[in-house]
Amino acid sequence: MKNTFGNNISLTLFGESHGDAIGCVIDGLPAGVEVSGDDIAHALDLRRPSGKISTSRVEHDEFKILSGVFNGKTTGTPICICIPNADTRSKDYTPSIIRPGHADFTAYEKYHGFQDYRGGGHFSGRLTAPLVCAGAIIAGSLKKKGIYIGTHLLRCADESDRAFENYEDDIERLSSISFPVLDEAAGEKMKAEIEKAKLEGDSVGGVLETCVIGLPTGLGEPWFDTVEGVLSHALFSIPAIKGVEFGLGFALSDMRGSEANDAFCVGGGKIQTRTNNCGGILGGITDGMPLIIRTAVKPTPTINKSQQTVDYLKREQTEISSVGRHDPCVAHRARAAVDAVTALVIADLYAARYGTEGLISEEHE
Amino acid sequence: MKNTFGNNISLTLFGESHGDAIGCVIDGLPAGVEVSGDDIAHALDLRRPSGKISTSRVEHDEFKILSGVFNGKTTGTPICICIPNADTRSKDYTPSIIRPGHADFTAYEKYHGFQDYRGGGHFSGRLTAPLVCAGAIIAGSLKKKGIYIGTHLLRCADESDRAFENYEDDIERLSSISFPVLDEAAGEKMKAEIEKAKLEGDSVGGVLETCVIGLPTGLGEPWFDTVEGVLSHALFSIPAIKGVEFGLGFALSDMRGSEANDAFCVGGGKIQTRTNNCGGILGGITDGMPLIIRTAVKPTPTINKSQQTVDYLKREQTEISSVGRHDPCVAHRARAAVDAVTALVIADLYAARYGTEGLISEEHE
Amino acid sequence: MKNTFGNNISLTLFGESHGDAIGCVIDGLPAGVEVSGDDIAHALDLRRPSGKISTSRVEHDEFKILSGVFNGKTTGTPICICIPNADTRSKDYTPSIIRPGHADFTAYEKYHGFQDYRGGGHFSGRLTAPLVCAGAIIAGSLKKKGIYIGTHLLRCADESDRAFENYEDDIERLSSISFPVLDEAAGEKMKAEIEKAKLEGDSVGGVLETCVIGLPTGLGEPWFDTVEGVLSHALFSIPAIKGVEFGLGFALSDMRGSEANDAFCVGGGKIQTRTNNCGGILGGITDGMPLIIRTAVKPTPTINKSQQTVDYLKREQTEISSVGRHDPCVAHRARAAVDAVTALVIADLYAARYGTEGLISEEHE
Amino acid sequence: MKNTFGNNISLTLFGESHGDAIGCVIDGLPAGVEVSGDDIAHALDLRRPSGKISTSRVEHDEFKILSGVFNGKTTGTPICICIPNADTRSKDYTPSIIRPGHADFTAYEKYHGFQDYRGGGHFSGRLTAPLVCAGAIIAGSLKKKGIYIGTHLLRCADESDRAFENYEDDIERLSSISFPVLDEAAGEKMKAEIEKAKLEGDSVGGVLETCVIGLPTGLGEPWFDTVEGVLSHALFSIPAIKGVEFGLGFALSDMRGSEANDAFCVGGGKIQTRTNNCGGILGGITDGMPLIIRTAVKPTPTINKSQQTVDYLKREQTEISSVGRHDPCVAHRARAAVDAVTALVIADLYAARYGTEGLISEEHE
Repeated sequence: MKNTFGNNISLTLFGESHGDAIGCVIDGLPAGVEVSGDDIAHALDLRRPSGKISTSRVEHDEFKILSGVFNGKTTGTPICICIPNADTRSKDYTPSIIRPGHADFTAYEKYHGFQDYRGGGHFSGRLTAPLVCAGAIIAGSLKKKGIYIGTHLLRCADESDRAFENYEDDIERLSSISFPVLDEAAGEKMKAEIEKAKLEGDSVGGVLETCVIGLPTGLGEPWFDTVEGVLSHALFSIPAIKGVEFGLGFALSDMRGSEANDAFCVGGGKIQTRTNNCGGILGGITDGMPLIIRTAVKPTPTINKSQQTVDYLKREQTEISSVGRHDPCVAHRARAAVDAVTALVIADLYAARYGTEGLISEEHE
Repeated sequence: MKNTFGNNISLTLFGESHGDAIGCVIDGLPAGVEVSGDDIAHALDLRRPSGKISTSRVEHDEFKILSGVFNGKTTGTPICICIPNADTRSKDYTPSIIRPGHADFTAYEKYHGFQDYRGGGHFSGRLTAPLVCAGAIIAGSLKKKGIYIGTHLLRCADESDRAFENYEDDIERLSSISFPVLDEAAGEKMKAEIEKAKLEGDSVGGVLETCVIGLPTGLGEPWFDTVEGVLSHALFSIPAIKGVEFGLGFALSDMRGSEANDAFCVGGGKIQTRTNNCGGILGGITDGMPLIIRTAVKPTPTINKSQQTVDYLKREQTEISSVGRHDPCVAHRARAAVDAVTALVIADLYAARYGTEGLISEEHE
Repeated sequence: MKNTFGNNISLTLFGESHGDAIGCVIDGLPAGVEVSGDDIAHALDLRRPSGKISTSRVEHDEFKILSGVFNGKTTGTPICICIPNADTRSKDYTPSIIRPGHADFTAYEKYHGFQDYRGGGHFSGRLTAPLVCAGAIIAGSLKKKGIYIGTHLLRCADESDRAFENYEDDIERLSSISFPVLDEAAGEKMKAEIEKAKLEGDSVGGVLETCVIGLPTGLGEPWFDTVEGVLSHALFSIPAIKGVEFGLGFALSDMRGSEANDAFCVGGGKIQTRTNNCGGILGGITDGMPLIIRTAVKPTPTINKSQQTVDYLKREQTEISSVGRHDPCVAHRARAAVDAVTALVIADLYAARYGTEGLISEEHE
Repeated sequence: MKNTFGNNISLTLFGESHGDAIGCVIDGLPAGVEVSGDDIAHALDLRRPSGKISTSRVEHDEFKILSGVFNGKTTGTPICICIPNADTRSKDYTPSIIRPGHADFTAYEKYHGFQDYRGGGHFSGRLTAPLVCAGAIIAGSLKKKGIYIGTHLLRCADESDRAFENYEDDIERLSSISFPVLDEAAGEKMKAEIEKAKLEGDSVGGVLETCVIGLPTGLGEPWFDTVEGVLSHALFSIPAIKGVEFGLGFALSDMRGSEANDAFCVGGGKIQTRTNNCGGILGGITDGMPLIIRTAVKPTPTINKSQQTVDYLKREQTEISSVGRHDPCVAHRARAAVDAVTALVIADLYAARYGTEGLISEEHE
């Protein structure tokens, strides 16, 4: 099940950057979930490169729903979404020169030279476009259950965004802005730094922070299918992500137990924790507090500087300098993919406990 | 497949801390793999609490292999390993008072009060004992392929171990010492800090760093079943792990592309990278360089200090102070579980590409 | 996931006929399902050889529940059941002489001689004992939902049992008798034929017919996870089963559409079919009518007649005559395994639609 | 994983009969497998309705490969094949009148009225077109390993075809003829009977017999993933199949052990069985003899006779008479789907043992 993820609700990705089309198949969603073309288009907008801080490659992303939707609602059978590839300049890449930081080398080794090397092929970040389409549909069904997801750029090029404060408002705000920061001033500084890196032919990375609110307690399993495990499994698929942590994550390893433990309290008859250092997960299972995920996005490997590399076929040392249009930063765009993957995993964990019918029934609302 | 992990080679865990037995079933290993009782016992030793810095609970861990091994070798059919529970003092816990930082609350919510709450039940770190047994068998088969795994305590209580230098020697060294550090002096400081925390009734966390050498290129998949994704999925099962990163991980997010990218070079006809910032994985696939994983271990939640909590059944605020024997640090012991999980995942990814027969054939050696 | 079956509710089997123990792990059952030792013991009785028509091997089947059950109810975590092997006479078999109709040859080929060949090893029908234990627990939870399963020996040694008439009464009746026929006279004739075959050193087969009542509509999927597909997948694991059909099955292939189609009608506001030629499944999905499955059981391969075979290691033609204690018929005993497998599959399909929580909630009752 | 099948090599189906397109995604095939458009077109021809004995619906089946194939060979990443729907007359069906023998009723129950009911929607036999495309690609890779698959119409409308004689020649012959019988005269009689049924507004069923030659020993697993289990799981997806048997199948249940057991012999240093009653599978594992599968195809449910049924929404008894263009027999066309499913399963079982790389390496050839 290589390119498929999920047990009860699953997603399959297909396509290459410069092939005929990229797309996905979503399976397991119950019948009757509303599918809004506007929501999908909006989600695609959030991952689309735009302005000075992005690649000049125009991505139209005209998606077509080929199956599984009828009269604006899911039919309960697989939904195939297809995005034809339009603006593709294949000549930008010389296949045999492997690009540092990219999958060119490992693709050669894994696929023995049969891979579609044009524009990164199946490894291209373009594949996150159908992922984002799928996420928009799934997130729509989670909203009916009161579950909302939002991601901001916590850190980028030595600048930091403010932390989440009012989760609901912050998530609402993030849903409508293309550069996802909570503190606008911090965002401007980040953009300036990204632009500066671009002018220097370089790139920057960043850290994304995701919050999920409205989760019921009891999702996830004690072993293997922990909420952390399943989420990280899917999140590491997003190109450039090299680290995933929950709650205070790595910072917890420097704390004492007396600081790290979240004290329990009762509020309105409901048991909660006073702090949320564990990020809403105890023993691999949701505790009803906001779920907090942080993902590390490495700097875009494509840069306009000369780099030492190798000609794979000739087995000779060489240099590579300009390797096509590029994004000086993908961290802010990656948030659309992070939101999508998170929606998929949450829906799948929900369905494991309450069934696919549980996702549309009114019982648990 | 909640408590089962792996596609071609899979592991199922069962048992509760104070039940009759804990154990595991390993399925998919080819026939003919040597099973050494000594190797298993040694691996169990490495996770066993010992000395001043550990719990006083004596864990005998007398494992029994119930099936799947015949004349000292795997038969190719499922291997069940069982560890009877002996020294169990159930009275240490008052079930209704939920312990901060533990899974008591989420277990109540998920299992509606039917969970075996004694000693953490199925959530107990004791479950890593059968996991470690399984890992020892699987690691044995990987060694035949020239694949070696080693984990050290990179950071603990504000002290840092030195980085890996000579991978082979360092891994060899780690395999025989119970407190896994490369720099002995740093280790002594860590132990002193752990003991200090214990005396104060508190606990500490740590960061583990794992290295896998000898991996072929081409393991892992571009989407979903990336090496990072599958490893992190399994690693987050280990109790107390709250963060996983590969290569430079979160540090990459603060770097520029020109610094982060690993330049390629040719050495002895083989293509390699000069640096290993990506941790041996490009595009989700092994590139033949050492695989580098870091995991954040939170401080042990069990402490001997008074903590605010709630009586789950009475829905009332209360306090909890001494909650049984405890480990002031589990990070060093967790390395045995990390090694085991890593062995399982690597073997599974290997089998996906070369078949379960590939694990015993001499073709790829 | 070789020896594991099921998505939401799964079963793993382990053990060898003459090893230390055989057993299983059931995962995914919700917490709070009553586990009755008597029910398990009763189910084991129904698969136990008894009387003149069976093997003289005494199977005590003293099962132990090692985990997952606390205070007589499921905890929601994996249930491991273990049956120690007692009465084993390993000398009955000469390993190198492969027995016709058995898995000796394929085991050699698959496991390269490392298999535990004693008594059929992992291929032994004894493995159905833990399967039956698991089935008893799962069937108990289905009964709470009004779902009942019963299997009779429709045909054996040229004798036929009567068809199901009153499903509820017939299933009730079958649950308490060890030779599962609806027409006692037909049963006596079958038993006489089986005994006759035994005296002649030979064996007979049979056809089992299973009925499941009380199923909701809508279980199963249109493609791949059809009710027929998932059931047959699991049923073919039962040793000796070589055919599976639903409704009229193979007989449908000789009919015309006008005869085969089940007309719909309305009864008490509920839509039903007048006939049930399709066996309660349309388009792979339950239609609310009784589910009808028939399985073909081949005659026991172990006989006391001289047979042509080969010495696997010497690669020489040879003969085999008496090969240990044997059952002249396993068809009637196999029904316990068929019931168990059916319960597992139905519960798993139920959980896919209504969640594991759905299996204990009162919503769908 | 509802509409996805396979572990190492998997297939996902999507689409509705009268939607925009139907298609599939094949994942896990190694890189470098030749993909012949002609082979795919030929396989589609074999499932296409043609002549007097078929529906008058014209199915163009112009497939497009959207991804995973580059320069005529697989890239190793997911292959999406898409077939746009052209000739669709949606008005033929009145949605609320549920057709006997079809999935209309169960679709209503499962999908609460949100299903795409036009032309059977996702349940339509048209979905076997992408399945057949996938099968053609996979079968191509099996042929390189010397594995060949062929299916004939063993029985139809009271006429019988001759049994397989020379497997290689018979399979070769079947690959080129659209009405798959080994005895041409028997085929003519069958066609006459089918035409007769058509004139009477009725339909007939049939039994297909499939043979796979060139299989290595050792594929399949003893429990759950038996060759019989995995094949039947996938085969029951094909609409109208209601029974699956292996070797002599149900006929074995009427035999004695002394007749049923296949004696072993040595031929050219290789161990074989003299007869092949077990159909090439012992203990769930291939024994190197030809694999023999028989599948029962029920008569096409669509007929031009008046049938009793119900208006689903009105809950009223009604009649249905002419329900669109129809095939008086689908058994002969279903063979293309049976071949495809068989290829998928064999390739998947092969990959489990020898890895996906094993499918293209020359080691096992």
